[in-house]
Amino acid sequence: MGHEGREIPLVVLRRLPIYQRYLDELARLSIERISSPELAKRIGITASQLRQDLSWFGSFGLQGYGYNVQELLHAINSIIGLNEETPMVLMGYGNLGRAIAGYEGFRRRNFNIIAAFDPNENKWGISEFDLPVYSLDKLQEFLQNNYVKIGIVTTPSGSAQETVDLLVKGGVLGIWNFSPIRLNVPPDVVVEHLHLANSLMTLSLKLRQHVASQQEYS
Amino acid sequence: MGHEGREIPLVVLRRLPIYQRYLDELARLSIERISSPELAKRIGITASQLRQDLSWFGSFGLQGYGYNVQELLHAINSIIGLNEETPMVLMGYGNLGRAIAGYEGFRRRNFNIIAAFDPNENKWGISEFDLPVYSLDKLQEFLQNNYVKIGIVTTPSGSAQETVDLLVKGGVLGIWNFSPIRLNVPPDVVVEHLHLANSLMTLSLKLRQHVASQQEYS
Repeated sequence: MGHEGREIPLVVLRRLPIYQRYLDELARLSIERISSPELAKRIGITASQLRQDLSWFGSFGLQGYGYNVQELLHAINSIIGLNEETPMVLMGYGNLGRAIAGYEGFRRRNFNIIAAFDPNENKWGISEFDLPVYSLDKLQEFLQNNYVKIGIVTTPSGSAQETVDLLVKGGVLGIWNFSPIRLNVPPDVVVEHLHLANSLMTLSLKLRQHVASQQEYS
Repeated sequence: MGHEGREIPLVVLRRLPIYQRYLDELARLSIERISSPELAKRIGITASQLRQDLSWFGSFGLQGYGYNVQELLHAINSIIGLNEETPMVLMGYGNLGRAIAGYEGFRRRNFNIIAAFDPNENKWGISEFDLPVYSLDKLQEFLQNNYVKIGIVTTPSGSAQETVDLLVKGGVLGIWNFSPIRLNVPPDVVVEHLHLANSLMTLSLKLRQHVASQQEYS
């Protein structure tokens, strides 16, 4: 819900993680205030779009004084859900699983991986990053005893669907999927896909378009 | 360029990797033809939007016969640049680097990681995946002798900028950046960021919106 109780439009919501990232960066640099033209320029949008977007979350900008970075960050964090802890489990503890476990930008946002699960017994125990790694047969009990919001799926494609079925059975409502397959989930479960190949194809495309446009002008 | 020599709109281009992924999946399942309503449904857009988008790339749909999957895939691959090899180097061979080196969806799309570079001498040599891992002081010579199109940056944030500077110095025009920092590059260099935290924040947001909308109706 935004100002006057109206629902925040989806297009605005989609830009929130980007705002969060820039404001978080400013906060870490101990920058207290930023003007809307300056923040807009960093993000790559117009100042008027920025002001319009942010007006959904309350009144932060004082004419001539810019935004209070901490206040704005707190408001955005609250909408995204970063002011409270998000306990997560990591399914699969291979190279990708370890890379995610060690990623620096999660803990700062209250995203906490509290356990990993992997079928390979050589991986069981307390891993680097102080993360406990369990066998899959410990999953249901773990999910019953811990309020896990998000399951991160980094298993091979062939076992992604059964992994998701186990998470859903244990009551997990959010799936962050790194496997390149579509998943079947009940309607109350939310899935966010991260397709590495999509991102790389986008780069390839941009590169071709860029080269083509440069040749046109040369 | 699309039909009649007009430039393909950016919004259409952005959807191309998604079309590619679904068509590639159909091709691997040996499905030869697909109707526009069926393909649109799989992707989650309307059939009319699909037909409109695809009309930019030529005439593939025969009324009543649907699309020839291979033909359409070939046309889309050609626009994205997947019909020719894209040689890439991997900067940083930690957990994330290894996960990318082993990712199954790249080679099939002609994205070839031909070498990795890491400052840690324990990683030098031929790694799993038959990938040669070199020290950083071999980079410039390697870039001079190989036509490297894309550099994948998986180094720690602190060394991402200097890594990119080295790639740019060696003539690499495409940067796929996994580090959570902004990069300074000359205008002829294209950067695509993959921000893990953005994707996870989007999931958190969707989850909250989803829960909120369910509570409204319950």
